[in-house]
Amino acid sequence: MNNHHWTHLKLDHSIEEMGEISYSLIERLYPLCRSITGEGTLETLKILNENFDLNIKCVATGTQVFDWNIPKEWNIREAYIESLSGKKIIDFKHSNLHVVSYSYPVDKVVPLAELEKHLHSIPEHPDWIPYRTAYYNETWGFCLSEKQRQTLQDEHYRVCIDSDLKDGHLHYGDYFIPGESRDEFLIFTHICHPSLCNDNLSGIAIATQLAKVLSSQTSLNKSYRFVFAPATIGSITWLHQNQDSLHNIRAGLVLAVAGDAGPLTYKKNRNKECYTDQLVEHVLAANGRPYKTVAFSPYGYDERQFCSPGINLPIGSLMRTPNGCYPEYHTSADNLGLVQPEYLADTISAYLDVINIFENNAIFLNQSPFGEPQLGKRGLYRKTGGENIERSILAKLWVLNLSDGEHSLLEIAERANMRFSEIQVAAEELYSTDLLELTT
Amino acid sequence: MNNHHWTHLKLDHSIEEMGEISYSLIERLYPLCRSITGEGTLETLKILNENFDLNIKCVATGTQVFDWNIPKEWNIREAYIESLSGKKIIDFKHSNLHVVSYSYPVDKVVPLAELEKHLHSIPEHPDWIPYRTAYYNETWGFCLSEKQRQTLQDEHYRVCIDSDLKDGHLHYGDYFIPGESRDEFLIFTHICHPSLCNDNLSGIAIATQLAKVLSSQTSLNKSYRFVFAPATIGSITWLHQNQDSLHNIRAGLVLAVAGDAGPLTYKKNRNKECYTDQLVEHVLAANGRPYKTVAFSPYGYDERQFCSPGINLPIGSLMRTPNGCYPEYHTSADNLGLVQPEYLADTISAYLDVINIFENNAIFLNQSPFGEPQLGKRGLYRKTGGENIERSILAKLWVLNLSDGEHSLLEIAERANMRFSEIQVAAEELYSTDLLELTT
Amino acid sequence: MNNHHWTHLKLDHSIEEMGEISYSLIERLYPLCRSITGEGTLETLKILNENFDLNIKCVATGTQVFDWNIPKEWNIREAYIESLSGKKIIDFKHSNLHVVSYSYPVDKVVPLAELEKHLHSIPEHPDWIPYRTAYYNETWGFCLSEKQRQTLQDEHYRVCIDSDLKDGHLHYGDYFIPGESRDEFLIFTHICHPSLCNDNLSGIAIATQLAKVLSSQTSLNKSYRFVFAPATIGSITWLHQNQDSLHNIRAGLVLAVAGDAGPLTYKKNRNKECYTDQLVEHVLAANGRPYKTVAFSPYGYDERQFCSPGINLPIGSLMRTPNGCYPEYHTSADNLGLVQPEYLADTISAYLDVINIFENNAIFLNQSPFGEPQLGKRGLYRKTGGENIERSILAKLWVLNLSDGEHSLLEIAERANMRFSEIQVAAEELYSTDLLELTT
Repeated sequence: MNNHHWTHLKLDHSIEEMGEISYSLIERLYPLCRSITGEGTLETLKILNENFDLNIKCVATGTQVFDWNIPKEWNIREAYIESLSGKKIIDFKHSNLHVVSYSYPVDKVVPLAELEKHLHSIPEHPDWIPYRTAYYNETWGFCLSEKQRQTLQDEHYRVCIDSDLKDGHLHYGDYFIPGESRDEFLIFTHICHPSLCNDNLSGIAIATQLAKVLSSQTSLNKSYRFVFAPATIGSITWLHQNQDSLHNIRAGLVLAVAGDAGPLTYKKNRNKECYTDQLVEHVLAANGRPYKTVAFSPYGYDERQFCSPGINLPIGSLMRTPNGCYPEYHTSADNLGLVQPEYLADTISAYLDVINIFENNAIFLNQSPFGEPQLGKRGLYRKTGGENIERSILAKLWVLNLSDGEHSLLEIAERANMRFSEIQVAAEELYSTDLLELTT
Repeated sequence: MNNHHWTHLKLDHSIEEMGEISYSLIERLYPLCRSITGEGTLETLKILNENFDLNIKCVATGTQVFDWNIPKEWNIREAYIESLSGKKIIDFKHSNLHVVSYSYPVDKVVPLAELEKHLHSIPEHPDWIPYRTAYYNETWGFCLSEKQRQTLQDEHYRVCIDSDLKDGHLHYGDYFIPGESRDEFLIFTHICHPSLCNDNLSGIAIATQLAKVLSSQTSLNKSYRFVFAPATIGSITWLHQNQDSLHNIRAGLVLAVAGDAGPLTYKKNRNKECYTDQLVEHVLAANGRPYKTVAFSPYGYDERQFCSPGINLPIGSLMRTPNGCYPEYHTSADNLGLVQPEYLADTISAYLDVINIFENNAIFLNQSPFGEPQLGKRGLYRKTGGENIERSILAKLWVLNLSDGEHSLLEIAERANMRFSEIQVAAEELYSTDLLELTT
Repeated sequence: MNNHHWTHLKLDHSIEEMGEISYSLIERLYPLCRSITGEGTLETLKILNENFDLNIKCVATGTQVFDWNIPKEWNIREAYIESLSGKKIIDFKHSNLHVVSYSYPVDKVVPLAELEKHLHSIPEHPDWIPYRTAYYNETWGFCLSEKQRQTLQDEHYRVCIDSDLKDGHLHYGDYFIPGESRDEFLIFTHICHPSLCNDNLSGIAIATQLAKVLSSQTSLNKSYRFVFAPATIGSITWLHQNQDSLHNIRAGLVLAVAGDAGPLTYKKNRNKECYTDQLVEHVLAANGRPYKTVAFSPYGYDERQFCSPGINLPIGSLMRTPNGCYPEYHTSADNLGLVQPEYLADTISAYLDVINIFENNAIFLNQSPFGEPQLGKRGLYRKTGGENIERSILAKLWVLNLSDGEHSLLEIAERANMRFSEIQVAAEELYSTDLLELTT
């Protein structure tokens, strides 16, 4: 007989407290200038390392990862636009969004018309600075608010970007928590954005909390992996370096834009049938709060890579307001005011619910499948008949009826239109008698 | 070439008369005190035996049937609650619902507080006596109306239940009507409820009428079986004793709560694909009256047993208002006023429609499948072309088009959005020429 | 590596002009008296032959074609009803609808009561002459307007039909345009109706235009076949004579009732999955104009034959207002006013869209399926990141993601909710790099 361990996750902090702790971490990481490479990103990983023993990997510039090569490492010390009289108009010190990521070093006087070609602003939101990147194109640029841009009236300006693009490394962190089974749940979060809170300090902070919770359990049925890496090149690099163990991944989520006031949104996997879809859709439908599901599309975050046809992992993305769907997206308005502890806590709660089902879900076999077994003689039925049935007994009848080797507890919960937790309680009671056995 | 017999059921009584006859049988059976065992139940089977040669089986106390054992036989002679001054407050003579089924014998004076623990009433319906059972628990109890309960003001009462629980037998009746084929339609109805009309004298009375109709046919394509047995332990016992022939069952219905004013309701099988579902849903959709379908759930009547995972028969339940869905359910208000001949007749009509399709449905092969066959030269087409087609010709075209070996006549009727009877007429005409042959 | 040719159809005339040219052909063919055999039908084929080298086939009376035999050839010179005083009341010269098709020769004086049995009119539309046929029944008859019928007050009339029914031939035309692949698209249109414009001179005229367009292309990926034949007996004859090559047909349409003001209507194939359904439904949904789809039924035009169970070809019917669904159907009011160049042009446009997809659709394989390929280094991506993605890049991401060997470009377009043309452009760009290869 197989032995099934029922996991009841122990939390050192309440969900609310975990929201607060996440928010504090966001505040601490906010000032750092992250990009797909560079010191700000490495510093971020080191701060996460205070929480658990993160495996920080370095991959050298030029290394081939599938169709890509690791780019040069970008670092920046200072950058500004100043008038010829020496007055700084735009200064990287005030916001690391001011410089287009991966800008080449430049230090020259340019006519305004020339400068304009290197400027990015948002006329509809005249106070906001946009976030722009130019990873694989040799160029430079400044981002500034439309109001700042309007003040540029001189014929010439001096532009200075004291950056360098040199052979170096790309860094990512991998944290693995082994369980009884090699079946693995992957949580991936991108770490390449500078001072933007929802996208994606929220994901970094929540993943950190989840990893701490899981690492503190005395035993787990399943294994968990957290990957903190730059978007696109980072996930592609991780996939390239972990090709041999991808087959262990049974479910997983790309965790991003997870701290704003919008409802939880689940972006489904590319395949019609996907275990992660089953898990997340049950959690969202059961928790009673508004939520959305959106179909897969090959744009967004790193689900693009996990769902590429040659990789095709059972991974979706659970977020709040998706990329591009809120006005502050990729602007300086995605700041410490946009994310709040209560929304971070709500996202944490949903992820923990998903993990709980992943931990406990299994297919059992009814050991007395010919007619109903006599629950009464096992103390599992009511004493007096004639009234309508209690919900807890109905849950047991569902588990017995569908434990035919073809339905997991999660599928039984869906069919019975009950919460997984109700079905789990029923299964635990039945399993404690002789009536259920785990399938192999 | 196979020979196909088209069945046209002959009725000795009109549907309306069959409703009246059913109601008379209900009136006759109403006073008997039935339970899962005992004389009232056996007496009920003997009365049914007047209609046809019912095979009444006895199974001894203690016999193991799957996970269960046949319980002791329960019989009761009298029961009452009386005041110490000798006044009978509650008397089993007035209603056999007054005693909790399977109550142990008792004869003693008890304080009111003690008595209260053994009383069942329904505050929301102060005039109704509930129906309660305690089959597998050693206890006793009385059911009474809330109004009666309020009159109990003395400090002590005498309670007397003159029952016995002894080794004896469980009884059920099995009536088999063989047809050309061993393919079998099962109708199961429970017989264990005392003076309750809709649940389930209605089922007993309708099954009796259907069995009489089928037994009076000169020939039948298919076989039919009627089982009259106590709920749960009765169906489990029958399943246990008939394991070797269950594979003949192609369709079947649990017949209960079939005489009230509610619309016909079909509770589907546990499996996604089920022939009984096909049959019943076609009949209900075609008859033009309101109806409901409800998903399978592992609670209700004996479909719980027929649809247990180890048995998994293609059986549903065709009823009127389901168990627990009408206020009079399991109370003394489920009486001779709740069921009416016209509703019994309506249920009979639907069952006969289902049986008619089961009798005549088959898969045929179009013998001229390359283009349309020339119906005109066989006298099966109109003489002048140009106007829109007649419905009877369209039915023939549907039968020819879909008789490709993959569609039964019932499936053709569904696809054509026509009644089975229209498709049957077309098939009969085509079969009488060389154009259709029965698949083997 | 396979070589994929992208077809961009070249048109000698605009779609509008093609509508006008079609209308002119209808005007020219309108006066001819067509039937399932006879000189008017052959003359029609000869006129079509002016446009391309039509293969006109003769099949002799009596030849067996599946369940049918080619009937005698029917020709008619004149026909009238005249008063005994010699006044012509009804004259075939005025409308070839006046005579029931396939009427036997007759020349006699008959009492009015006898004549009435041979008359057809439409009381609801007192000015319209109905169209009636009696192909396989030895009879004669006249069709006339209800108003004309009311003027018949004499006791006797002379009826004369100078027709003959003799051994002869059935004629049909077959025009095949070979492409790179033997995969064939079949367009069938019936040619047996006399002076009726929508049903089906519209189909004849549109098929002629489409055949001219396809025959003028310098290269085609796929092959195309146009069949102009009488309804029912003609399609059955064609199917009988081409049994050996039917397996090349990958898609096809019965083209009829294609010039009226109603919305485009697609009648689906009998099978749940059908490539023609995919093609047409995409075109209709994408073109932004109202349209209808209707389920298959075994009545209508020659899809009855193509979808018979032994033939079962992937063919549907794309028309405007279906047979029997407009009041002028099969009456003299289906005339040159009912069809208009603009509606003919609209139908042509939809057919060309279908053909374009049939030409270009294929399944490709992403040659860099592990993660996203780096589009930027191939000049296929934008230079600056951070803003939402352009639709043209999104189309490329869809093609890459779903080019896993299981999705055709058409299926990708459906899944991406984009037009086929957008997906085709993306695929063309990707194919021009090393990123896509055609599956074999």
